[in-house]
Amino acid sequence: MKVITTVKNMQILSCELRKEEKIGFVPTMGFLHKGHLSLIDRARSLSEIVVVSIFVNPKQFGPSEDYLTYPRDFERDKRLLKERDVDILFYPDIKDMYPTGYSTYVEVEGFDATLCGARRPGHMRGVATVCMKLFNIVRPHLAVFGEKDYQQAILIKRMVSDTNLDIEIVLSPTVREGDGLAVSSRNIHLTDKERKDAAVLYKSLLFGKNLVEEGEDNTDKIIKTMRKMIEGKRTARIDYIEVVDSKNLKLVKTINKPVLLALAVYFGRTRLIDNIIAVPARWNV
Amino acid sequence: MKVITTVKNMQILSCELRKEEKIGFVPTMGFLHKGHLSLIDRARSLSEIVVVSIFVNPKQFGPSEDYLTYPRDFERDKRLLKERDVDILFYPDIKDMYPTGYSTYVEVEGFDATLCGARRPGHMRGVATVCMKLFNIVRPHLAVFGEKDYQQAILIKRMVSDTNLDIEIVLSPTVREGDGLAVSSRNIHLTDKERKDAAVLYKSLLFGKNLVEEGEDNTDKIIKTMRKMIEGKRTARIDYIEVVDSKNLKLVKTINKPVLLALAVYFGRTRLIDNIIAVPARWNV
Repeated sequence: MKVITTVKNMQILSCELRKEEKIGFVPTMGFLHKGHLSLIDRARSLSEIVVVSIFVNPKQFGPSEDYLTYPRDFERDKRLLKERDVDILFYPDIKDMYPTGYSTYVEVEGFDATLCGARRPGHMRGVATVCMKLFNIVRPHLAVFGEKDYQQAILIKRMVSDTNLDIEIVLSPTVREGDGLAVSSRNIHLTDKERKDAAVLYKSLLFGKNLVEEGEDNTDKIIKTMRKMIEGKRTARIDYIEVVDSKNLKLVKTINKPVLLALAVYFGRTRLIDNIIAVPARWNV
Repeated sequence: MKVITTVKNMQILSCELRKEEKIGFVPTMGFLHKGHLSLIDRARSLSEIVVVSIFVNPKQFGPSEDYLTYPRDFERDKRLLKERDVDILFYPDIKDMYPTGYSTYVEVEGFDATLCGARRPGHMRGVATVCMKLFNIVRPHLAVFGEKDYQQAILIKRMVSDTNLDIEIVLSPTVREGDGLAVSSRNIHLTDKERKDAAVLYKSLLFGKNLVEEGEDNTDKIIKTMRKMIEGKRTARIDYIEVVDSKNLKLVKTINKPVLLALAVYFGRTRLIDNIIAVPARWNV
């Protein structure tokens, strides 16, 4: 595995590789877990060269968010990627990515009305901007994103399509622990009690999905039920529970097509997100 | 000369060409004149394949601006480009460039304080956005921009550098008529009287430049003199005259390094821009 630490060297290498081989790319913020590894396996199965980036992107964290405490362990990450047969690890420096005078941002409109886009001002802009940069540096043929960050994945798809980037965006299913908790780098911050309580998230999503499938079309009722389940856990504090159109992520009041049930919940100071797609019984493809 | 009218076909072609040959690109809004042709000659001298795009980009016109009346003559443009030995003319449709649901914009911060960026809200965003798209579609190694749109050229340089696009941005000097008027597609809208009066723009720029070179460092005085000259023409109505740092385009009060003297002036309903670089006598490189 090659470890590349400068933008320039990565560009020289990808420019060469791209001529001959299909490049699959998995952008990450490091502190890798089973979820990342499944994205890497997916990229591996679809391409000849697999590039993984590790970059904790300051532009996608708000001023009161957890940029400084976001977990990092480069040596462990490097070992995991080597074991996983990754070809290139791109690990750039902040100053190389955002030099003095940096001024350019990619805005994808329409993502600030729901879900994390509505709660984390600047987050989606930061994600779009860093992905645009990474795509231009790595020049992949395809990039794999996890469904856990569903809104982010839809945003990137939109950006790639709008800006005519010639990159296929592949979505890969959320990986879960035995009790259903979506794996996340942030799970490490949970106390034992919080970790146990956090299993309620997936349970509530499954319950909501079941309601939709059984014909409940009133999102208020579904959200109320899920809210009750989650509030049953002492350490949980709900940021949002929303039901949105699975394609355009707009709020849905009455369900008559596939929806995304999505939530963000604090356990102590750790904010976790998760989601699930639910298809109403009477919906025809 | 190949004429390509769809984004997809252009991408297929440029992807192939790029592997073997150096692509030079000149983005235009058509209604070609000597200025465009000089950009094309510059691209020709620097690359193996020359691509010219013609696309009147609605996103860079404000609601009260001249998008609908912007002059167009595709057949004439095509003939001129053929004569000029252009390899590929890219002439996309609006709906292909901005399909329904289009949502992505490139913002380059810091360009809204001076010059056209301060007077035309959304203009610079529209320029950055369409150039990002065109660069991704045409995949050039270099792109040539005219110094007449100086702020636009600096904006594009910043965007390309910030987003790690592997494209060299080449600036090419403003082409002028015999009396000094910068050639522009919009000149066709001028009446005979306005056309004659418009020659004052370059004269005032030369006069201002001369003042700087002779040691005048007070921008207010320079602007006042230029203003007087231009206001001497009955058909002229000044939008702005500004003196800015030639690198970062910030307003300059006291001149102690190279500056850009820049102006925008209406003649009737036609808004013309022009600029000149002035280097103070005592400035050492």
